[in-house]
Amino acid sequence: MKRTSRDIRTANRYEVLRQIIAESPTSRQELAAATGLSLATVATLVGELLDLGLITEVGFEDSAGGRPRGLVAANASGGALIGVDIAETYVHVELFDLALNVLARSDEDMRAGESRPEQVVRHVAAGIGSVAARAGIEAARVLGVGVSVPGQVDRDTGVAEYAPNLGWHDVPLLGLLAEHIAHPLYLDNPLRACTVAELWFGAARGRGDAVVVNLGTGVGAGLALGGGLHRGVSNSAGEWGHTTLVLDGRLCHCGNHGCVETYVGAPGIMQNLRELSPRSPLLHPDDQTATIDALARAAAGDDPVALGVVRETARHLGAGISDLINLLNPEVVVLSSWVAARLGEPLLGEVRRAVARHALRRPLAATEIVLSPIPTDPVCLGAATFALEGALRSAGQRAAKRTTTARGRTAPPS
Amino acid sequence: MKRTSRDIRTANRYEVLRQIIAESPTSRQELAAATGLSLATVATLVGELLDLGLITEVGFEDSAGGRPRGLVAANASGGALIGVDIAETYVHVELFDLALNVLARSDEDMRAGESRPEQVVRHVAAGIGSVAARAGIEAARVLGVGVSVPGQVDRDTGVAEYAPNLGWHDVPLLGLLAEHIAHPLYLDNPLRACTVAELWFGAARGRGDAVVVNLGTGVGAGLALGGGLHRGVSNSAGEWGHTTLVLDGRLCHCGNHGCVETYVGAPGIMQNLRELSPRSPLLHPDDQTATIDALARAAAGDDPVALGVVRETARHLGAGISDLINLLNPEVVVLSSWVAARLGEPLLGEVRRAVARHALRRPLAATEIVLSPIPTDPVCLGAATFALEGALRSAGQRAAKRTTTARGRTAPPS
Repeated sequence: MKRTSRDIRTANRYEVLRQIIAESPTSRQELAAATGLSLATVATLVGELLDLGLITEVGFEDSAGGRPRGLVAANASGGALIGVDIAETYVHVELFDLALNVLARSDEDMRAGESRPEQVVRHVAAGIGSVAARAGIEAARVLGVGVSVPGQVDRDTGVAEYAPNLGWHDVPLLGLLAEHIAHPLYLDNPLRACTVAELWFGAARGRGDAVVVNLGTGVGAGLALGGGLHRGVSNSAGEWGHTTLVLDGRLCHCGNHGCVETYVGAPGIMQNLRELSPRSPLLHPDDQTATIDALARAAAGDDPVALGVVRETARHLGAGISDLINLLNPEVVVLSSWVAARLGEPLLGEVRRAVARHALRRPLAATEIVLSPIPTDPVCLGAATFALEGALRSAGQRAAKRTTTARGRTAPPS
Repeated sequence: MKRTSRDIRTANRYEVLRQIIAESPTSRQELAAATGLSLATVATLVGELLDLGLITEVGFEDSAGGRPRGLVAANASGGALIGVDIAETYVHVELFDLALNVLARSDEDMRAGESRPEQVVRHVAAGIGSVAARAGIEAARVLGVGVSVPGQVDRDTGVAEYAPNLGWHDVPLLGLLAEHIAHPLYLDNPLRACTVAELWFGAARGRGDAVVVNLGTGVGAGLALGGGLHRGVSNSAGEWGHTTLVLDGRLCHCGNHGCVETYVGAPGIMQNLRELSPRSPLLHPDDQTATIDALARAAAGDDPVALGVVRETARHLGAGISDLINLLNPEVVVLSSWVAARLGEPLLGEVRRAVARHALRRPLAATEIVLSPIPTDPVCLGAATFALEGALRSAGQRAAKRTTTARGRTAPPS
């Protein structure tokens, strides 16, 4: 509900670390200027982050006439974070240092029918073992593992509640993973992972309100409002893929008709291709990835069928994005995830034109539409960021406990 | 962008005053418990509100064994606030005491073709004169006038930028009003006025995220997220009426087809009636208000045509509200404004059924859909609340200025 002073402290701690990771080395004075926090607050938070080993002192810089200023930087070697991206067609695992550089990655493809929970858990455990071995990281240095799984998740209980594209209902994923993995585990979905990645490292960093449109097999719209992820009252905000775009339109696996996802998710784009050119050689009937790749290559080469499919996809996507712009009045809309990354500039151009036709003048003028600038898998990066946030939160709780215990009182319930 | 410590102080000041107005008399201890703020913070804020004359000490209550606790209450006689609701068919003006009780109101109808800016300004000035005279309030005691006008407004410059249903473009409304009215003036639109009214006094008070669906001639969705009004980056968030609900559907005055507003705004409901029963005696072709009133009375009497129109309206409204629930995962959806107030329970029931068919299970389970509990015009109440917020903000700025001046420094830019 309302933000408590503990929430504000946590948000400020994220903000300072985010800024240090983005601009290392940096001084407390620069951090205060960049975050709008007071120098005293910044000094306290920097002290906490130094104590946690997440950042490190790296020397001094001269300040004009004054005392030399201490510089801090992300402590790349202070620990490792792992991000896991479970998708309908693959499992990606990446291992990061604390500056969020990728040290090792593992990609495993999954074929249709290979996505039973125990199969996926084996892929994830193998991937984690593989990246840790390749990066030469001891288990004790892994601060946490963030796991992203499509659909609706309960991050408190670690249950994947509903993942229609995987055929999962109420799978206790973190429980299953914990049998193989000893690190702290954090569950969320690709939509929120992409959004947090943009908020910390991408196009939403330092911006006001942002919408991260996630185009994969499924489709969602992550909301970064007021500098933080908008989760909603039961952590399911962003389920934009099932917005009705065409009343009585294409049947969706959710049971409704005309959902955005049925026109702009990977299977929807395949359907757009089928309707435009049923025998197109671009179509790989059983392989989304191959079809989107073929479309991307052909569109880059000005193939008229591929451009037609991109235009038809963008017509629907642009109408839906216009509605988001009108409703939320964001500063930036980011096109993210693998379908957006592959279709790239041709898709972006057509979406911008479609939005310009649809959206209201005032919010349109305030909004920029961009492709995600994150060069690696944004879902792995975002999942690793959830692990980093988790490590910061539990460190904060331990610190609060020490303080109150030292004063001879028990910690108040939060 | 990010909330500064001044924003947080202002939000806390609103929160404490809101709680005092809702539950007078009350103690600092009760306020701390209700708001989650520390007793020290509450004591400081209560002191400020006492200094401003917005609240008053009203005695003591025994606390079990401890010192008697001081009680405070809204200082009803500490000043007056005026709320103005300019709609397509009327101008309502209400005068409130500081407990936000209505002391006097003025209703003036406007006919089609009577809505030129100078005509509206005359209605508003006459209404303000009338309520002040009837309430016997001296001009000096009016802390401010909040003015709501439909469409897109620039609240900083006081310009009504685009009000299609009034035929207005870039009308410098506050400038025109200031020629007649000496009180501080605050401009915003009915959508945000209704939302702030629900946030301070209605169904969104003390709740997490809320969506206030505003059903009048135009249609919008005000967003109360994290305990505050979500304005977006250029104060235009909530333009939900132009969300595409039916691709290639009814032509909207915005130039697009199939906008939500064309099915569930008052003219859209008239069209639903025309399509269901072209010669219905319920239809008053040139009078939205009379038609909605006739429909409401007939629906309450189980008239099958009226119930059919309500059902058809709710089918569209329910699909649109489901999309909002999926996207934002709010705790409560409030149906507000005059069309919702008149169609009442029959509309609410049909909307709940339509949403249950459409929305995703998880966000649906977390959401309640209710009619606005505000018994008076929520737009007037919200507009007066903007004036109250404005008075609190400028009092805060004056206080900050005094403090820094006393220290011999100039106030920092905020």
